[in-house]
Amino acid sequence: MASLPPGPPSSGTPHAHSHVVPRHPRLDPLADRYAARTHGMKSSEIRALFSVVSRPEVVSLAGGMPAVTALPLDAVGSMIGELVSGMGAQTLQYGSGQGDPRLRERICDVMALEGITDASPSEVVVTVGSQQGLDLVTRVFCDPGDVILAEGPSYVGALGVFQAAQARVRHVAMDDDGLIPEALEQALLESRANGDRVKFLYTVPNFHNPAGVTLSEPRRRAIVDIADRYDLLVIEDNPYGLLGFDHEPMRALRARDSQRVIYLGSFSKTFSPGLRVGWVLAPLAVREKLVLATEAQVLCPPSLTQYAVARYLDTQPWREQIKLFTELYRERRDATLESLEALMPAGTTWTRPDGGFYVWLKLPHGLDAKLMQPRAVNAHVAYVPGIGFYADGSGREHMRLSYCYPEPDQIREGVRRLARVIEAELDLHSTFDTVDTGTFRAVGRPAESPAETIVGPANSDRTED
Amino acid sequence: MASLPPGPPSSGTPHAHSHVVPRHPRLDPLADRYAARTHGMKSSEIRALFSVVSRPEVVSLAGGMPAVTALPLDAVGSMIGELVSGMGAQTLQYGSGQGDPRLRERICDVMALEGITDASPSEVVVTVGSQQGLDLVTRVFCDPGDVILAEGPSYVGALGVFQAAQARVRHVAMDDDGLIPEALEQALLESRANGDRVKFLYTVPNFHNPAGVTLSEPRRRAIVDIADRYDLLVIEDNPYGLLGFDHEPMRALRARDSQRVIYLGSFSKTFSPGLRVGWVLAPLAVREKLVLATEAQVLCPPSLTQYAVARYLDTQPWREQIKLFTELYRERRDATLESLEALMPAGTTWTRPDGGFYVWLKLPHGLDAKLMQPRAVNAHVAYVPGIGFYADGSGREHMRLSYCYPEPDQIREGVRRLARVIEAELDLHSTFDTVDTGTFRAVGRPAESPAETIVGPANSDRTED
Repeated sequence: MASLPPGPPSSGTPHAHSHVVPRHPRLDPLADRYAARTHGMKSSEIRALFSVVSRPEVVSLAGGMPAVTALPLDAVGSMIGELVSGMGAQTLQYGSGQGDPRLRERICDVMALEGITDASPSEVVVTVGSQQGLDLVTRVFCDPGDVILAEGPSYVGALGVFQAAQARVRHVAMDDDGLIPEALEQALLESRANGDRVKFLYTVPNFHNPAGVTLSEPRRRAIVDIADRYDLLVIEDNPYGLLGFDHEPMRALRARDSQRVIYLGSFSKTFSPGLRVGWVLAPLAVREKLVLATEAQVLCPPSLTQYAVARYLDTQPWREQIKLFTELYRERRDATLESLEALMPAGTTWTRPDGGFYVWLKLPHGLDAKLMQPRAVNAHVAYVPGIGFYADGSGREHMRLSYCYPEPDQIREGVRRLARVIEAELDLHSTFDTVDTGTFRAVGRPAESPAETIVGPANSDRTED
Repeated sequence: MASLPPGPPSSGTPHAHSHVVPRHPRLDPLADRYAARTHGMKSSEIRALFSVVSRPEVVSLAGGMPAVTALPLDAVGSMIGELVSGMGAQTLQYGSGQGDPRLRERICDVMALEGITDASPSEVVVTVGSQQGLDLVTRVFCDPGDVILAEGPSYVGALGVFQAAQARVRHVAMDDDGLIPEALEQALLESRANGDRVKFLYTVPNFHNPAGVTLSEPRRRAIVDIADRYDLLVIEDNPYGLLGFDHEPMRALRARDSQRVIYLGSFSKTFSPGLRVGWVLAPLAVREKLVLATEAQVLCPPSLTQYAVARYLDTQPWREQIKLFTELYRERRDATLESLEALMPAGTTWTRPDGGFYVWLKLPHGLDAKLMQPRAVNAHVAYVPGIGFYADGSGREHMRLSYCYPEPDQIREGVRRLARVIEAELDLHSTFDTVDTGTFRAVGRPAESPAETIVGPANSDRTED
């Protein structure tokens, strides 16, 4: 129920404004002109970090970059080249604000894999990544001061959107089975008692970012039931749903309630994030407002990238490609969990994802992932401190480890380095006797001695100049 | 100083919500949940129109679509295909929120053509078209109720952004030489007297959309001087600056003041609108806020489209291509002006653009372009009624004619049809005796008899399902 905790103020990005603007010696001559919504805007923990960890000697378990080089690049290149040569009048031209009708049809096919069989292309709005979808939904529903319920922890990019909308975030507890229905109901009752306007629940039900857990089937039923009883709108953000390692995709919340659930989808993890193609599925009345909002924001999404995704779905073996991605991520997940079990000191606990990109790790009691970060970077391993995933300053004992991008050997070396850093912290803090396993199931092992150093490649979500 | 005038409520788009949602018989069960900013959101006059005029028998002088088929499509296709095949790890991956550093360097080269020689790539933020740039600037500066000064008429897409931000627009008069400095100063004085917070002046100095006029050199100096004296921030929106027919590009406002002018640029008219690549050039302190805002909105712009533009600028004869575009548009402008002079009834006046896409036409006194629109569409010619370009309900006697997309023969036929419609209106209203030439210079000719019908292709900015 608070703004994001303050991160490092400048984060490695040059903005020593006064040194380059001799005519205006004040620090920022426009400082008194900005909108209120800018006051809480801060660099996320992730961006703050990536200006530091893009060095090649650092093994980054921080970034959430998909393994795009596993795509058939020659085939995709030919396909996109032909789209421009043969259909330039369409692919290089303005398109519809709502998005290409053909792509919206194919999006409905993709959603059917998760049990959404009643979606109409007219209910789909194509967006510049699902990030824009979430921003549009938030703009359409949230006035300053409105309350949004979200898992604790929650996706850092969502917290940034909610903050820009001057909404207040109230976290709802989760455990290994995802969001806890009783905690959701409690939050609704308390919000009602406080007179807060709760605009929606924001949830990532599958292979949660950052927690790595998945909402269980009974809880899906319970949450849809609560939404019905409390007349609660649910924003279901599902970028990872098709990336499960062990079973078929679970039935989406949207498949159970077409009126109270607004669904956000993305091709960033199943095809390519560099195309920035996502979508929103919403009831028609909401859809119409989303289209007006996106027209004011970007006029229309890029035509070329939309045609590229539609053609990819039409002509390439995209289901087999998703299997290939999941095999690759499963191997990396295994390397991560095996290394954690082999190397982490007692008192360290972590989640065990069966899909997606992330492990959520809790340090032994008393350690602080944010304070430890510079020492980890010195030891050439990077992670994202947990506080970035909370709007209320929680998460200091937590960190997110991403296994999506580094090779298994790099992951093993990264975890080895991380274990040594944690051990050194424990020595420093002498807190071996205080162990708290938290709400996530714990697996603890005594530490091993480190093996030889393996150097990973530059590894960041985004490069900053 | 008002919200956009109400357009047709549904504009051909299906949203008869109650017919498809049997479980919720109310028209929109979420009607009481939307944010305040959605209340004024309306389909623009342009979108309202395009669902109607995409029929092939209609000559559309409505859309602002560039002539992208004049590009070397095979070369551009090969270039983009190779970018994916050879650099998929970059072009298909997430990138920086601020935009690709190499593209930002090339953007500085482009801006140098308009006299901006001191721009640093670190001051550039790449956006999803300049529309997103304007949205970001508005979000960073405007709270609800703030005042924005803008030419009257003004770009319809900008009015949509300002409305979504719940800002109030105050129009400033313009004439054949663009924005009138005395009117700007008057507006500033009156706003100050009213206690209004004026956040910025929004201006399109070159080949204005929709007015077709260009800010003269003396007025550029006067406006920069007023900005300095009144400490006024200026948003210079310049998508058409390199598309002049008769002389070298004029020196940008930003070239005269690097601290008070925020510059918006676009590759939509010099290369391709379907890539949606634009940019903002802003002082570093503002730049930092724009990057945070764009990260919350889209994470990062698409990588593929950014690499495509950078590679295009690196390897293709883009200056020659702009010359080719301007020759083509000049020919279409000539066809438009010659037809108008030959065919329009007395009392009709219009601007004479020397670049860009648009002619701004004023009907004989008493006629209403919005009311006349259905009869024009029946006569198989389309334009955009002027009221969409004002926030205060003005512009009923005006229309925007776009000559960028139709072939010259289609333009001549379209103007011929339009002239007949206007004549019929005049007959109906019997107002031949009342002539008002307005602030734009008038050219009037007696009407000619119509020639044979030439049917144009489907011709719309955006297609709606």
